[in-house]
Amino acid sequence: MLNFAVGPVMMDDETLDVSSRQIPYFRTNEFSAAVDTCRKNLRSLFGAQDSYRVLFMTGSGTAAMEAAVMNVLSPKDRAIVVNGGTFGERFAKICSVHGIGYTEIECECGKTLTEERLTAIDGSGYTAFLVNLCETSTGVLYDIDMISEYCKKYGLLLIVDAVSAFLCDEFCMAKHGIDVVITGSQKALALAPGLGIMCFSERAAERIAANDVKSLYFDLKDYLSNDERGQTPFTPAVGVILQLEEKTTRLIAAGGIKTALEKAREKARYFRQGISGMPFKMFADRPSAAVTALSVCAGTDAYDIFIELKDKHGIFVCPNGGALKSNVFRVGHMGNLSYGDYDKLLSALSDVLRR
Amino acid sequence: MLNFAVGPVMMDDETLDVSSRQIPYFRTNEFSAAVDTCRKNLRSLFGAQDSYRVLFMTGSGTAAMEAAVMNVLSPKDRAIVVNGGTFGERFAKICSVHGIGYTEIECECGKTLTEERLTAIDGSGYTAFLVNLCETSTGVLYDIDMISEYCKKYGLLLIVDAVSAFLCDEFCMAKHGIDVVITGSQKALALAPGLGIMCFSERAAERIAANDVKSLYFDLKDYLSNDERGQTPFTPAVGVILQLEEKTTRLIAAGGIKTALEKAREKARYFRQGISGMPFKMFADRPSAAVTALSVCAGTDAYDIFIELKDKHGIFVCPNGGALKSNVFRVGHMGNLSYGDYDKLLSALSDVLRR
Repeated sequence: MLNFAVGPVMMDDETLDVSSRQIPYFRTNEFSAAVDTCRKNLRSLFGAQDSYRVLFMTGSGTAAMEAAVMNVLSPKDRAIVVNGGTFGERFAKICSVHGIGYTEIECECGKTLTEERLTAIDGSGYTAFLVNLCETSTGVLYDIDMISEYCKKYGLLLIVDAVSAFLCDEFCMAKHGIDVVITGSQKALALAPGLGIMCFSERAAERIAANDVKSLYFDLKDYLSNDERGQTPFTPAVGVILQLEEKTTRLIAAGGIKTALEKAREKARYFRQGISGMPFKMFADRPSAAVTALSVCAGTDAYDIFIELKDKHGIFVCPNGGALKSNVFRVGHMGNLSYGDYDKLLSALSDVLRR
Repeated sequence: MLNFAVGPVMMDDETLDVSSRQIPYFRTNEFSAAVDTCRKNLRSLFGAQDSYRVLFMTGSGTAAMEAAVMNVLSPKDRAIVVNGGTFGERFAKICSVHGIGYTEIECECGKTLTEERLTAIDGSGYTAFLVNLCETSTGVLYDIDMISEYCKKYGLLLIVDAVSAFLCDEFCMAKHGIDVVITGSQKALALAPGLGIMCFSERAAERIAANDVKSLYFDLKDYLSNDERGQTPFTPAVGVILQLEEKTTRLIAAGGIKTALEKAREKARYFRQGISGMPFKMFADRPSAAVTALSVCAGTDAYDIFIELKDKHGIFVCPNGGALKSNVFRVGHMGNLSYGDYDKLLSALSDVLRR
């Protein structure tokens, strides 16, 4: 099995070693220390200040997205939401469900947000800006420098879904003035799925503390107070947190975010060079290093390629859903994938195309 | 490490074998088939009819409790909540947060609900009954036959938190007229934490379909429709579902619920006999087979016992919090624990008591 999907992804041997062990009881000082190590390492990788709060929630990336938005914002806010695909749409839906007023900037699938589009919007009527740094469904990377500047100009709270972008595409919470970063365990961290990770600036944490949310599980006030003793209010995904401790410690030792970003970029570059002779086109006009979305030429069905790679070669790529199902498939650059693994994929792709 | 806590618990070798493997991509027919196997096996173990719906949510047991209550009930309902400890209180809090009117039957910690208390309440003004079959914080088992009869008499929807009771204490959804059963992966199923499991009767599923909940992640309508193709709306805890497939298949092959219940009862009996000479008293007047809560005699601190067992013997038992912290600790009977393991615990307990 070789997995180029965009989560879960191939885990490192060290991670598999942790996940093959018994899971300890967690209301202990030892587990609190592991949580503390995770927080410190993640702050470093997020480019966050020491005062920023890192919270863990057992759930998918979407659980963390919803928790972050409903706790940091309220119906008194007015948000700008960049919607260029499935995950931008999800942010819009979360705002809608929780009564948060918003304006969508709809981007055509595969197209990034241009400066022209952005600056045409007068930000002075808004309080927050929501963006998926990498729109996983299309592989588009939005321009964080441009968005950061815009948010600073209008004093907007900046909420970034970095579920796929983290460890692949550059961002720095402190430098970019990002108030909320959301990610998940099963993307470039390459751990088992089940853990949502959130990091909050001081002003975002203050908003959580002052907010009144209608949920027990999603009330981050409880997470903030439990976090002070390195615990979570409900049973955490203990095993995944232990994997996270091992993985982030290893990432920091290997050079931190800079090294991780270089590796992801190298993998993306290698694969993109490898397909240069094949009948595919890059779908994203500004591609993320996390994933390459490829549109296929007429006469070829993208979903068939996914099925053939899976059934004949034991290789997973990531299909698209909805309107893009027949036209686009995606190849991830997250997790434990070597150049040799990409060579196998390229050879399998050639084989599938020959038929 | 030897873990007698009440979740996470000791996993079987077969489960560790599954969890040591790479995790596949999940939007596939193969994964849908695994989900389908889990559903069938769980229906058998829950004593559910074929028409009952089994849903999976990435989250803790509390996430599943909240999702079930807020989707099946609404502010139009009026519920009776049995509150005899931390988890009864949690049900009450969930009702309160979601505007569901309720009356609590408060049971003193360690005491079960008596027929006298129950029948004193006129059920005709209510629509639902919420109970933790085993109140994990005190080890009390409530009488499901009595509660079932009461709910049938008044036509109440019966919602059962079986997070700890499942596979340890007997219940049968069809026979007892249970509308909702909630459990989690890290209890007697002995899998990694991170997966909430819910089973709904037809009338409960109809209520979900007709309800309007203010959450994206907790909207079970989406789970019901995705479930028809063996999928979940958001990335599931794929690894835990694969562990669940293996474990439930093995449980069914070994004789199903009957054998599982016998094993749990035997473990509980063995341990309870073993401590007969020690200065402990059974804290629960009607003990569950999932866990033994022990109150310590004056002059002994229960939390110190937890710490000494952990630090000097590498053994986890489960401490209590709040008012019971110094007086009560718990020993679980869930997961991969042999009589030999209990012998080790008993010997370590003797050693701790000698000091």
